[in-house]
Amino acid sequence: MHNLYQTLAPVLAGALALALTGCASTPGLQIKEVGSFHLGGKQVTLSGLPEKELRFTPSSPPIKVNPNGEFEAEQMYVQYVLQSAPKAKHPLLLWHGGGLAGVTFETKPDGGAGWQMDFLNAGHDVYVSDAVERGRASWARYPEIFSSEPFFRTKKEGWELFRIGPTWDTEPAKRVAYPGAQFPTAAYDQFAKQFVPRWATNNAPTQAAYDALVQKVCPCVIVVHSQGSTFAFEAARKAPQLVKAVVAVEPSGALDATKVDITGLKAVPHLFVWGDNLDKNATWQSILPPLRRFADALKSQGGLVDTIDLPAQGIQGNSHMLMMDKNSSQVAALIQAWLARQGLMR
Amino acid sequence: MHNLYQTLAPVLAGALALALTGCASTPGLQIKEVGSFHLGGKQVTLSGLPEKELRFTPSSPPIKVNPNGEFEAEQMYVQYVLQSAPKAKHPLLLWHGGGLAGVTFETKPDGGAGWQMDFLNAGHDVYVSDAVERGRASWARYPEIFSSEPFFRTKKEGWELFRIGPTWDTEPAKRVAYPGAQFPTAAYDQFAKQFVPRWATNNAPTQAAYDALVQKVCPCVIVVHSQGSTFAFEAARKAPQLVKAVVAVEPSGALDATKVDITGLKAVPHLFVWGDNLDKNATWQSILPPLRRFADALKSQGGLVDTIDLPAQGIQGNSHMLMMDKNSSQVAALIQAWLARQGLMR
Repeated sequence: MHNLYQTLAPVLAGALALALTGCASTPGLQIKEVGSFHLGGKQVTLSGLPEKELRFTPSSPPIKVNPNGEFEAEQMYVQYVLQSAPKAKHPLLLWHGGGLAGVTFETKPDGGAGWQMDFLNAGHDVYVSDAVERGRASWARYPEIFSSEPFFRTKKEGWELFRIGPTWDTEPAKRVAYPGAQFPTAAYDQFAKQFVPRWATNNAPTQAAYDALVQKVCPCVIVVHSQGSTFAFEAARKAPQLVKAVVAVEPSGALDATKVDITGLKAVPHLFVWGDNLDKNATWQSILPPLRRFADALKSQGGLVDTIDLPAQGIQGNSHMLMMDKNSSQVAALIQAWLARQGLMR
Repeated sequence: MHNLYQTLAPVLAGALALALTGCASTPGLQIKEVGSFHLGGKQVTLSGLPEKELRFTPSSPPIKVNPNGEFEAEQMYVQYVLQSAPKAKHPLLLWHGGGLAGVTFETKPDGGAGWQMDFLNAGHDVYVSDAVERGRASWARYPEIFSSEPFFRTKKEGWELFRIGPTWDTEPAKRVAYPGAQFPTAAYDQFAKQFVPRWATNNAPTQAAYDALVQKVCPCVIVVHSQGSTFAFEAARKAPQLVKAVVAVEPSGALDATKVDITGLKAVPHLFVWGDNLDKNATWQSILPPLRRFADALKSQGGLVDTIDLPAQGIQGNSHMLMMDKNSSQVAALIQAWLARQGLMR
């Protein structure tokens, strides 16, 4: 009996090893589905515009096109990656900032993995969206449908407003970054390929589409960047039972508690995340006071407002584009730890 | 000894069962990475345009913006889903058609999973792209950078040109679809939310970006739809050693073998996939002859050109948007079987 046990024991051990390595040999995320959808928007009809003749493929004859007719406009676009066994209680929604699209969270301009991967690895189902007018959400003819003309951000404005450095120059070698800049400055031109035009007149349909997204996929957690912040705060105000937390990453717009009722937001924990060199940029100095007032109003009504002030924690050099900075995964981990402390993981 | 064997055998069997169910209990795709990148394009400088003052977030003061400066233009966008253990020898590139973006392959307007999921499930690494000017590739100011103005496809044109049905009407109930239409006609307005504007003057930078994509991620297989076909045929012609097959799904443009040397393409197997009702649409009747001439030229030079003519195989009612039709997975499976027959799976 002892001999047979000695004979079978290694076989049993081998089977158990197979059980472990058989699974371990296929590392990576267990993904249930990747996909996307559009939502929001409406049908718009144009009439009275002149016909045109266009040749769309060189080998084909020209096609006479009539620009009049029905179109969909003001929809938004949402892509998702759903895990087989998410560790988070709710999906994570990643909302981009101004002049940008969901690509903000998908990749880093230096080729590194974006926050989408960081938060997938942390166990979240992730929804990355393009707001109305941006990227795959598409845009509509102006001034017939969108009432104003679009604005295209220059590389100079991005360099300065995103606090990559104080001095722009056409020549990469002459651009001045802040000391110890975390942004991968050599990849700045690559980052500029992500820029998309924006309108200043689409706030209402943008909010409506975000509100529809919350109704469709929440309860959820919203991580929002920059100009997206006002939409996220307002979406949470309208549906505080559906938004389990708002992480405002370098937010640029706030709600005015003297004009709207924010009492419902006390049920929604808020985290503000700030990079470095805010004091060195006049535009940012003008952006901050309404955000401070909003945070104070939230707190005075019993809400939870936490702040990760990276330089105050000894983490220097972060730009406005925290999710693209060299230490982006470190910043994501700080956010993830906060989410865990809010009891949002299983 | 017999007794101990009887004792240990179930343990051993249990360990082996654990080996199997331990893996089987986490169903879904094993994904290594999801991400994206932009490539192609160049820096463009604008000057002499007047300044504007814009308020981008309601709670923030207006910002004076100078539209002059440097921009990136003519880049394309590519997202990818990479598997831990792909079963295909090469990644699959999904290139969209005219007036559309990569969303074509990501989802179906009725909410079903898109071909991206079908081909992921079949074992491919998948790259879904937005060509220059479309979706997340972004677009550039015109006429200063893009030389012409964009064209927005009407819902009527889509209904007719995509051969969903012969008769369009603003009222969904009055629209006439072809008998036995496979397109989910109730979701047509949802499909129209995917439409993006297009230019007729960006063929050169679009081709350049696609060529750069082939250099970056191939060897590969290209599955291309509609207006994308010319770019795919030309990309394969320029790099026949890198493009292991071209699947042209309802292609709308061909190479002219009397004008360009296509001898290199004999190394690249081609598959043409056709839906139904081509004979009922005058535009499609004008599109087909150059494609037939191209296929004949390829064959006459020793190339492999196969065709899946769905109605000839008894599969009726497919539209131009095969990947969104109700039987989209059936069509994907036919393509997958052809890819396997070409020896492109491991």
